[in-house]
Amino acid sequence: MDGKEIEVIFQPDGKRSRVKSGTNVLEAAKLVGADLASICGGKSICGKCRIIIKGNRGSVGPPTSIEKSLISEEDLSEGYRLACQTPVFSNVTVKIPKNSRTGQQRLQIEGIETPTTLEPSVEKYFLELPKPSLQDPKADAERLLGELQIQKGLINLRIDPSVLQSLPSILRSDDWKVTVVLLQGETVIAVEAGDTTNRIFGYVLDIGTTKLAAYLLDLKSGKVVAVTSSMNPQIHYGEDVIARITYTMKGSKEKFELHQVIINSANELLKQLVERTGVKNDEVYEAIVVGNTVMHHLFLNIDPQFLGLSPYTPAVRRGIDVKSSSIGMNINPHGNVYTLPVIAGFVGADTVADILATETHKRSELCLAFDIGTNTEVFLGNKDEILACSCASGPALEGAHVKHGMRAATGAIEKVTIDPDTFAVQYWTVDNTKPCGICGSAMVDILAEMLKAGVIDVSGKMKRNITSERLRTVSTGVEFVLAYKDETATAEDITFSQKDVREIQLAKAAIHTGTVTLMKKKGVNEADVDIVFIAGAFGSYIDPENARIIGMYPEIPLERVRVIGNAAGTGGRMALVSKASIAEAEQISRKVKYVELAAEASFQAEYLNSFALPYADLSKYPETSELLKSLGKYPEKPPFYFTI
Amino acid sequence: MDGKEIEVIFQPDGKRSRVKSGTNVLEAAKLVGADLASICGGKSICGKCRIIIKGNRGSVGPPTSIEKSLISEEDLSEGYRLACQTPVFSNVTVKIPKNSRTGQQRLQIEGIETPTTLEPSVEKYFLELPKPSLQDPKADAERLLGELQIQKGLINLRIDPSVLQSLPSILRSDDWKVTVVLLQGETVIAVEAGDTTNRIFGYVLDIGTTKLAAYLLDLKSGKVVAVTSSMNPQIHYGEDVIARITYTMKGSKEKFELHQVIINSANELLKQLVERTGVKNDEVYEAIVVGNTVMHHLFLNIDPQFLGLSPYTPAVRRGIDVKSSSIGMNINPHGNVYTLPVIAGFVGADTVADILATETHKRSELCLAFDIGTNTEVFLGNKDEILACSCASGPALEGAHVKHGMRAATGAIEKVTIDPDTFAVQYWTVDNTKPCGICGSAMVDILAEMLKAGVIDVSGKMKRNITSERLRTVSTGVEFVLAYKDETATAEDITFSQKDVREIQLAKAAIHTGTVTLMKKKGVNEADVDIVFIAGAFGSYIDPENARIIGMYPEIPLERVRVIGNAAGTGGRMALVSKASIAEAEQISRKVKYVELAAEASFQAEYLNSFALPYADLSKYPETSELLKSLGKYPEKPPFYFTI
Repeated sequence: MDGKEIEVIFQPDGKRSRVKSGTNVLEAAKLVGADLASICGGKSICGKCRIIIKGNRGSVGPPTSIEKSLISEEDLSEGYRLACQTPVFSNVTVKIPKNSRTGQQRLQIEGIETPTTLEPSVEKYFLELPKPSLQDPKADAERLLGELQIQKGLINLRIDPSVLQSLPSILRSDDWKVTVVLLQGETVIAVEAGDTTNRIFGYVLDIGTTKLAAYLLDLKSGKVVAVTSSMNPQIHYGEDVIARITYTMKGSKEKFELHQVIINSANELLKQLVERTGVKNDEVYEAIVVGNTVMHHLFLNIDPQFLGLSPYTPAVRRGIDVKSSSIGMNINPHGNVYTLPVIAGFVGADTVADILATETHKRSELCLAFDIGTNTEVFLGNKDEILACSCASGPALEGAHVKHGMRAATGAIEKVTIDPDTFAVQYWTVDNTKPCGICGSAMVDILAEMLKAGVIDVSGKMKRNITSERLRTVSTGVEFVLAYKDETATAEDITFSQKDVREIQLAKAAIHTGTVTLMKKKGVNEADVDIVFIAGAFGSYIDPENARIIGMYPEIPLERVRVIGNAAGTGGRMALVSKASIAEAEQISRKVKYVELAAEASFQAEYLNSFALPYADLSKYPETSELLKSLGKYPEKPPFYFTI
Repeated sequence: MDGKEIEVIFQPDGKRSRVKSGTNVLEAAKLVGADLASICGGKSICGKCRIIIKGNRGSVGPPTSIEKSLISEEDLSEGYRLACQTPVFSNVTVKIPKNSRTGQQRLQIEGIETPTTLEPSVEKYFLELPKPSLQDPKADAERLLGELQIQKGLINLRIDPSVLQSLPSILRSDDWKVTVVLLQGETVIAVEAGDTTNRIFGYVLDIGTTKLAAYLLDLKSGKVVAVTSSMNPQIHYGEDVIARITYTMKGSKEKFELHQVIINSANELLKQLVERTGVKNDEVYEAIVVGNTVMHHLFLNIDPQFLGLSPYTPAVRRGIDVKSSSIGMNINPHGNVYTLPVIAGFVGADTVADILATETHKRSELCLAFDIGTNTEVFLGNKDEILACSCASGPALEGAHVKHGMRAATGAIEKVTIDPDTFAVQYWTVDNTKPCGICGSAMVDILAEMLKAGVIDVSGKMKRNITSERLRTVSTGVEFVLAYKDETATAEDITFSQKDVREIQLAKAAIHTGTVTLMKKKGVNEADVDIVFIAGAFGSYIDPENARIIGMYPEIPLERVRVIGNAAGTGGRMALVSKASIAEAEQISRKVKYVELAAEASFQAEYLNSFALPYADLSKYPETSELLKSLGKYPEKPPFYFTI
């Protein structure tokens, strides 16, 4: 880099990034928040950050060997490049093609409603104080605390020192009538002139690796008054948690950067909520934050590097209270920010919230739950005991590592059927537009439909002997055409390849391994499981039957399966409106038994068995076996079975 | 103001202040910290901010009627002006004459040493932790807290959230050997790699209205390792607390300004201490702050305006813990800043510290103590009960309202004798230089010596019938010459006028009224008082006998009087090294009975009686009466006595 500043203009959104000469296009895009996918976070692995150089290609460095291996010669000649591989040396315009944009993802933020007692950590008390006189010159704070004892029976309170700064004039501005805001029944965090007891709000932020969901609640009623959501801005730094940890390890500036972008987004979402409802930021006294352990650490600006290294220990397990002003959250400056406790390095506050929301910790029924994401957390248990683990299901179901994979944004194929006789494909897209890729729920459908139609066998192998022009062999191997280029928005065929099938098999095998390992550990079988909860944004669009057909989870009767949406958000809202839920959360975090899959003797064999569709031991899936047999498509035996 | 920027150069120190045209010279001086006295804080009352305009007098506005009343015609013609009355419209050079400079004041920071148990609020514990493994993947914070329980028996600890941010790498940087810093036996405020238990320091700041005293202590030994002091920079905003409160009432910017200058000075003094001793700021874990209630409020950025209005209620009485980083103190960023509790609006944390240092709250002996300053706090009692009050002794003893008054800086006359026969004057100055003014201890001497020499009578009236050229009548009234201009540094006579005598009478009457009101309230007389403590910087240079001769305090045998220096600093140091002292301080603040003098029925009459020298009822001062009679100078009866 020679230090010269140059400008990169991104099309179609027109964003302009001024950077030092030699900076690569991905960095330039991050700086201005240009909508450019980067699944691996610039590690030259995913090949998803394809861009097109417009005009003078001499403005950028020549294609690298990595690009030559990931981009066809024809595309290279048309100016296609990988953003992470392309340094810029003079002003240039860069087009981000549709496939490389993250787009407006469908962000699912609704979850089940679980009733809880209305008893928030933040309460308001209205008081009229006796005025001071020469005979009674008691200090203001002691006068206030004394009357809280006399009038409200509240004892042993402390007062936040920053409240004292303006306390004298607040007490006197409405003739010694004030409203006291009390946190956790012990700390006065604000004093307001007059009676403001009707105005008391709280905020819940669910930090997913991919998306943020935000809720504004009225703590008088406990009801949600507004919701909103956005992408997690950290996506620009890598799509999975490991990529983000890697980014923070560059230095403290980078660590703080990932912290700061989350705080900024939290404030931006809050701004939308308060503007829409006329609530003032100062009327929001508490924020509850849930997320996986890496998100939790980054939110609190805690060094996350050791979460990525065995034995994956978190910095802290218990729930943390921090003052809003100390972390930069724009709720009331004396307000409280509470992060729900975590369980382990890969079983985070979101799982604690899931347990709260499903009330697994209170039920007699045996519950099996999984919250599908890049990491899928699985837990199994009831009021007596809960086991939990985390499965590295990977980003395939979120669109990475799959050639035409994408997230559930506009144009994504989200549901697919394949006629078992004609192999005719029917698909549905998000927003009913022309398709431009395939999202996770459709990938599950594709595997199940291919299996039922006999396009793939129990091992996941595509059967080249079937007669359909959709199944074809190209230079990279066998693939199945879902949509021909004249139907698509990208003007190219949308296909699903043998390699793509393998990626989904890896993901579903991971989830299945987690579930059966916990079941074995607990000594229960399919019949013992009373309820299966499928949680998470992805989870709520998945077809539970198809997921079971491909063996994502054991063959438990479908009527026991409940798709519950964003249960983590539900748990966060419960913690906001109910002190009892917080106490329960702390207890859950202490009591849940974390199972480290890698440390289980049967893990490797179970994982290999789970790779089969639905499973290497078909006797475990009698219903699916029967269905496939009835379709005449499933005569084969699995190629192997490892006794465990 | 037309918004043009102009420059004011101050001589002799050469400071340059760039200000908007129209700004007055006092404001310009404040901005750059030029050494210019301003006793009233720019309220055009004190006439102490005299400056001389050099060169073109058209650069400044014309003299105002206030200046014409306070500055002689001759001086006006020589360019003398009042800085607070003189707006500047173009570049100008301003000389600050010696009399208008605050100078290098003698800052007394030593005080008695009172033994206390060594048990600071901040403790260090060294630990070796078991390393995490897949079988024991406990979170870092829980591992640490668990081992603190197992190895040190410490339970129910909490951990400061900001400690978590770097906890993972600190634990691993010296192979799981760490030192934990614990505050108040309950909060982990820092974790350091390796064994640092030998390095643990604390800081004490005594904020006087006039001076700051700062102490660095080694908390391993409890010993002071370095001390320093400076003027209170708030002096530029007014020399007494009321002037400063008035300044803060201009707006929140001004309030914050007075807060910020104290914090900056606290950090500057700390810097001197750590540089001198090689201690690192991060090794200082706690700061203890003492000061009167206004200083306390300004330090904490608490609105002080109601301290200036009846019934003078403080914002808070109890001691306050704040995190160092939240208030901007440059000790360890997770460190604690504790302000000692106050008692009332005009009986502050300094009085609590005085009580700690004198151990009045533990003694069987009846103690009377006063801490002389612009406000003089008086307390009386022992372990059973302590009464306290505040006397508006005013700034006369600190140099204001007295024509040649100044603080105890270089050249100040600090001790005076007058020959009762020849009226010859002998004086001693600070640093033995030519005199340039009179400081408080000398003023007490002057009144006592004049009384003994018969220059004034029991009512304080100068007796014009004595034959001495030193006693002369000028246009402004009668005055006594202490030093003729050929002896002085200012090349003018240093005199003490009838008006000056009255000012000191007002001050001593206030203090005397406080002491006798408390004694009456408690039902004790002079014989019952076992110990008299005279505290404060001024107090330690005062001649206790002369103070008693003029009736500053009741006629208690001199052998019972102890001059104890800066007892507030002593009390602060005790709080730093001993948790027990902090508990005692909180109890003192709750238990001491504040007596509002103005609310006492006898106050007015007592104050008038106290105006006499030594007192309107001579039978209360038999020893002094005898002395004066023996000198043949005291035949008169006091002109009045109000029965109380």
